[in-house]
Amino acid sequence: MDRHDAKGFSQMRFDPTTLNYNAAGLIPAIAQDESSGEVLMMAWMNQEAIRKTLQSGSVTYWSRSRQTFWIKGESSGHTQTLIDLRVDCDRDCLLIIVRQIGPACHTNRRSCFYTAIRETDEIEILQPQT
Amino acid sequence: MDRHDAKGFSQMRFDPTTLNYNAAGLIPAIAQDESSGEVLMMAWMNQEAIRKTLQSGSVTYWSRSRQTFWIKGESSGHTQTLIDLRVDCDRDCLLIIVRQIGPACHTNRRSCFYTAIRETDEIEILQPQT
Repeated sequence: MDRHDAKGFSQMRFDPTTLNYNAAGLIPAIAQDESSGEVLMMAWMNQEAIRKTLQSGSVTYWSRSRQTFWIKGESSGHTQTLIDLRVDCDRDCLLIIVRQIGPACHTNRRSCFYTAIRETDEIEILQPQT
Repeated sequence: MDRHDAKGFSQMRFDPTTLNYNAAGLIPAIAQDESSGEVLMMAWMNQEAIRKTLQSGSVTYWSRSRQTFWIKGESSGHTQTLIDLRVDCDRDCLLIIVRQIGPACHTNRRSCFYTAIRETDEIEILQPQT
């Protein structure tokens, strides 16, 4: 049942089964850097990945290609520590505020969003870190 | 064919058919506020919505519930003007930098991501604008 704090903000027990997952049981999760505000990447979680992320503090996605849990940075060292997990109005998308070590992208760029459309061209706006 | 500018950044003609859409022909698009960096919402686009967005400068999604184009703010006046459109490494997600007029969320909140998980609770962190 909803409670309210002194400022009138609602508060309830978090229940991951109340989120809206797609047919494959997945929900998109957007990772945003806690300090720069940069959007780093988007990946997918299932109910268990959300639980693991909340319990461990290490952001854990579900890899659709490998069909397995994917603890971000486990092999690369480019870890994401959970700072805050937010839910959207339709309960079908997550925003994850993270502390990102090193590049978030497997191409060694800080963010996965590294090309931009300018006029009719697509141009690279971030280069791999050295 | 790829070209490179003076700084070595690659540059090619943008072709929306080279993006990876899901089985329904859709790609997730994350809207981020150009000035605050706030992540405002996530919605879906198809190839034609991307073209319309680029041509008009008015961010246009595909409404999955209404199965129609959805020019953001057309009825509410809470428009999104396109500032930059970015593509991720897997070419299966877009990041749209926007100038947002008023609240982005249909609940009248600035952002759709308005609850956060704290300990075992889900708490409201943004209230509707008045």
